[in-house]
Amino acid sequence: MEQPGRIAIVGYGGMGSWHAKLLKSVKEAQLMGIYDIDPARSKAAQRAGIRAYESYEELLADPEVELLIVAVPNDLHRELSIQAMDAGKHVICEKPVALNSGELEDMIAAAERNHVVFTVHQNRRWDEDFRIVKELYEKETLGKVFHIESRVHGSRGIPGDWRNTKEHGGGMVLDWGVHMLDQMLMLVQKKPLSLYASLSHVTNDVVDDGFQIFLTYEDGLTCLVEVGTSNFINLPRWYIQGENGTAVVQDWDLSGKIVMVSDWENRDAVPVVTAAGLTKTMAPRTEETIREYPLPEVHADVKDYYRNVIRACRGEEEALVTHDQVRKVMKLMEAVFRSAEKNQVVTEIW
Amino acid sequence: MEQPGRIAIVGYGGMGSWHAKLLKSVKEAQLMGIYDIDPARSKAAQRAGIRAYESYEELLADPEVELLIVAVPNDLHRELSIQAMDAGKHVICEKPVALNSGELEDMIAAAERNHVVFTVHQNRRWDEDFRIVKELYEKETLGKVFHIESRVHGSRGIPGDWRNTKEHGGGMVLDWGVHMLDQMLMLVQKKPLSLYASLSHVTNDVVDDGFQIFLTYEDGLTCLVEVGTSNFINLPRWYIQGENGTAVVQDWDLSGKIVMVSDWENRDAVPVVTAAGLTKTMAPRTEETIREYPLPEVHADVKDYYRNVIRACRGEEEALVTHDQVRKVMKLMEAVFRSAEKNQVVTEIW
Repeated sequence: MEQPGRIAIVGYGGMGSWHAKLLKSVKEAQLMGIYDIDPARSKAAQRAGIRAYESYEELLADPEVELLIVAVPNDLHRELSIQAMDAGKHVICEKPVALNSGELEDMIAAAERNHVVFTVHQNRRWDEDFRIVKELYEKETLGKVFHIESRVHGSRGIPGDWRNTKEHGGGMVLDWGVHMLDQMLMLVQKKPLSLYASLSHVTNDVVDDGFQIFLTYEDGLTCLVEVGTSNFINLPRWYIQGENGTAVVQDWDLSGKIVMVSDWENRDAVPVVTAAGLTKTMAPRTEETIREYPLPEVHADVKDYYRNVIRACRGEEEALVTHDQVRKVMKLMEAVFRSAEKNQVVTEIW
Repeated sequence: MEQPGRIAIVGYGGMGSWHAKLLKSVKEAQLMGIYDIDPARSKAAQRAGIRAYESYEELLADPEVELLIVAVPNDLHRELSIQAMDAGKHVICEKPVALNSGELEDMIAAAERNHVVFTVHQNRRWDEDFRIVKELYEKETLGKVFHIESRVHGSRGIPGDWRNTKEHGGGMVLDWGVHMLDQMLMLVQKKPLSLYASLSHVTNDVVDDGFQIFLTYEDGLTCLVEVGTSNFINLPRWYIQGENGTAVVQDWDLSGKIVMVSDWENRDAVPVVTAAGLTKTMAPRTEETIREYPLPEVHADVKDYYRNVIRACRGEEEALVTHDQVRKVMKLMEAVFRSAEKNQVVTEIW
C-alpha cells in the first residue's frame, strides 16, 4: 500500500472518538478530520489535534477524503451513508447498519450505483474470545459441536442517551445482538432452521434491555445468544459443547478452560447422594476419566479491519464484511423482533 | 401419631433401596418388606434384613401393609399402582408418575374409587438449593424476580438401563424434567403463558438426553429449565434475577452468592475497552455500587415427605403432593414433547 487511506469520521461521540484514537496507530490510515453536529464535540476533536469540518457538506466536498466512517445515532445511518456514497465516498457504517432491511437495501443500492465500497463496522469479529470459540468449532477440538451459548451480561441497564429510544434505534438487540448474531453467522456459516426470541424490559419499556435468542440448525446444532443488562453476577461469555468435551470462555479477559473426556469406558459411576435424593446420572466424574486443558491462544488485531477496508477501496481485495453478511444479520434481527412480538418460532429468516 | 405407618416397596432397585434405607431413620414409618421381580434383588433385600415377599400378590394380600411405594420402571407405574389401590393400599408412586396424562387419569380414578391416598415421590421439593430459591423468590430479597434459570448438568450421558428406552419411559424430561418442572410449579405457582422446548440427542437417538425449556408467565417473568448429560463443565444449578440483584446457587453443596445494587444513582460508568471494542453498557460495576451477601440458610428434611403421606393415610392432613399438581407437571411434560416435536411455542398447557 503506497498511500495511506484518507479517512474522515461523521459523529465524534463514543464510537467516533474510538475510531479516531485507534486510527492513530494504523499506519495505513490517515485521519483527515471529523464532523459533528454538536460544536462541543468539534472542539473536543480540535483539542485532540483533529480537524473539525464546519459542515457535513464541507467534509463530503473534500476530494482528499476517500473513506467516511459513519458513527452517528442509528436512525441517521441510512441518510448520511447514502449522502456520502452519492458524493463518491467509500463508507464504513457503524452497527447496526440500519433500522430495517428496507433502509439497508437503499444503502446497498447507493453503493452499487456509485461503485463505492460500503461496509459495516463488525469489529467484534476480531474479539479474541470469539476467535478462540471459532478455532474450537472449526478444528473440532471438542469433537463435533452440538451447542453454543454466547452471553454478554452487565448490570447497568441500557445507556441513558439515544440508545434508550426506539426512534433512534436503541435497545440491546440492535446494540449488542448485531455483534453476537454476526459472530454466530461467521462461526456456524449456515442458515438457521428456526429462531425463538424473548426480549426483556426490566429497566426500559420502550426498547429491549436484553434478550434470549434460541437458534436451531441442521444436524441438531443449537445456539443460545443472550444479553442482559440487569445481571449482577455474570454467566460465562461463551459455553461450547462438543461430543467429547466442553469449553468455557469466562470473560473478555480470556480466562476459561476446556474439559474433555479421557476415558469413554468409564462413563458409569456410583450414585451420589444430593440434598434430598440420589443421582447416578448427575454424579461428578472422577479425575481419572476427564482431563482439563487451557484454551487455545489466539491473536487478533482489530486494526486489520481498517486495513482490509482501505485495500478494498483500492480494489486490492474484497471487504471482509460483505453486503450479503450484513443483510443476513439484519434479517436475523428482524426475525428476533418478529418472534418476540408474536411469541412464536420463526422459520423464514432469509 | 400412635402407630408407625406400615410401608412396603415394590421394586428394590436404585430408588426402592433408597426408600428402604431412608425409612430406617423415619420413626413414624415401619418397612414391612419389598417385592422385586428379580430374585437377586430379593436376596439383596434379605441380606439387608428386609422381608422379601414371594409375589406381588402376596404383598398386596398382607393386611398389615397400609402404604405401598411403587419404584419400578416408569411404564409399569400405572398397572402396579392401580392393582395396589384396588387392593385397598395407599400408594406413593415414583416419578414420573406415568407416561402420559391418560395413564395418570386411570390412576387418579383408582384412588378415588378406592378412597385411598395416591401421591407421587416429588422428593426434590425438599432439596435445600430449591428452598433457598423459593425463599429468595417469595421474600423478594432481590426485588421482584423477572427471570429464573434452573439447570442440572452432568457428563455421563443417560444411564444404560431401562432409562435409555422409550417404551419404559426413559429420557431426561421424564427423569429430571419432572422434578424441575414440579419445583418451578411450586415456585411460581402460576400457569405459564407459553412453553418452548428443545430436546438433545447427543448420546441417544431414541429418548432425549437433555433439554432446554423456556417458559413465559404474565408480568414478564421468564424461566429456563435445562438438563444436560454431556456437560463437562457445569453452569450454576440456579441463576435468579430480581430487579435489584442476582443470586446464584452453584451446586447441591449450596455454594453461591447474592449480589445486589447498593447505589442506584451510580449506574453510569466509564466505558471499558474490551478485546476489539469498547463498552459502557457492559462495564463491570465498581465495588462501591454493589454489595455481596451470602445465600440464606435453609433447612429441609426429605423425611417430612413420608411423615406427610403417613398422616394423609390416616386422614390427619392433606398429601402435600396433590393430584392436581401431579396433573399439571404431566401436562407440562407433554407440552415439552409437543413443542420439541413441532419446534413450536405451545400456549395450551393445561
